[in-house]
Amino acid sequence: MKRKGILVVVSGFSGAGKGTLMKNLLKNYDDYALSVSMTTRNPREGEKDGKEYFFVSKEVFEEKVKEDGLVEYACYCGNYYGTPKEYVETQLEMGKDVILEIEIQGALKVKKKFPSALLLFVMPPSVKQLEERLTGRGTETLEVIGQRLRRASEEADGIEKYDYIVINDDLEVCTRELHSIIRAAHNTVDRNGSFIENMRQELNVLVKGEK
Amino acid sequence: MKRKGILVVVSGFSGAGKGTLMKNLLKNYDDYALSVSMTTRNPREGEKDGKEYFFVSKEVFEEKVKEDGLVEYACYCGNYYGTPKEYVETQLEMGKDVILEIEIQGALKVKKKFPSALLLFVMPPSVKQLEERLTGRGTETLEVIGQRLRRASEEADGIEKYDYIVINDDLEVCTRELHSIIRAAHNTVDRNGSFIENMRQELNVLVKGEK
Repeated sequence: MKRKGILVVVSGFSGAGKGTLMKNLLKNYDDYALSVSMTTRNPREGEKDGKEYFFVSKEVFEEKVKEDGLVEYACYCGNYYGTPKEYVETQLEMGKDVILEIEIQGALKVKKKFPSALLLFVMPPSVKQLEERLTGRGTETLEVIGQRLRRASEEADGIEKYDYIVINDDLEVCTRELHSIIRAAHNTVDRNGSFIENMRQELNVLVKGEK
Repeated sequence: MKRKGILVVVSGFSGAGKGTLMKNLLKNYDDYALSVSMTTRNPREGEKDGKEYFFVSKEVFEEKVKEDGLVEYACYCGNYYGTPKEYVETQLEMGKDVILEIEIQGALKVKKKFPSALLLFVMPPSVKQLEERLTGRGTETLEVIGQRLRRASEEADGIEKYDYIVINDDLEVCTRELHSIIRAAHNTVDRNGSFIENMRQELNVLVKGEK
């Protein structure tokens, strides 16, 4: 049975370890393709075009929007961010499950356009741990940490729009859990309509032929 | 996080290998408890009370029905069959996922009473394989095989009422798939309402405390 890929949207609080989790998922399993977003913001030090983002001009981005070439897009702090459609669709056709790591607003737009998309939310085991991780990075000022916690608090309001949560306590356990959830989604009755229908028809023919 | 068990209903065509699959699932993983049905039919040779079924009198069965002691029950060929509620509830409380191997009518009754129950349908990889398995047993007459196929054809009409299908081609692969599906179900947003709500409240307190 040839299977089509599933579009998987992953969101989660800053500090919940989404990035590491995605990297580990792709390292451990061949089933996935990670979508790379397109943005008009400038690359930060060390960022490479086509790896962290596709860095494009405002004109190129707006052209993409016009030709309906993005799955979703949004504007933050004066810059555009969006998900190129072509890569996503090619990978899905090839049977890869495509991971989009985006925020809740984007996630809801994707769900509207692709109702069969799977929405996952990554959570820390506790608020205390979230705080510790944000503080422990040592790279952020207290103000930034405060902002992130406030942002987490806002995002927490939207979790009910998601299908599944994963709790990132132990990285390997969480990666396996994530993989289990996506794998299980391939077995929903909804995603196997034609297999079920074919078997039903074959059974009908057989039973009627016998009568 | 203490987790409550999930009620898992498994149905499938006769010849799809449900029984072997359930045995293998219980052998490979500690997470499960298999519910034993109660019946008023006579034990067949080799069947033991409390193993295949709890064998009881019609009076005892009807008493159970009166005191609402069954999750579901039905009457086939003049005999009662039902699922004792107490065992199911105790095991769920203990965190075990409880497997009920019942037919579609029973499955739908369970879903009505326990909306969070997970309904799985076991299918053969093809109708051809189903026929071969039924014939290959060598224990059934052609008439019985015909009956089973007709029954399968009827049951196929109800598959859309289920949540997931599993295709039993390779026993070990199918067992792992089944386990993945049930495991994933523990992570749905619906089944983690209180965890999510607690984190939301803690975040709110923290953020407001900071302001």
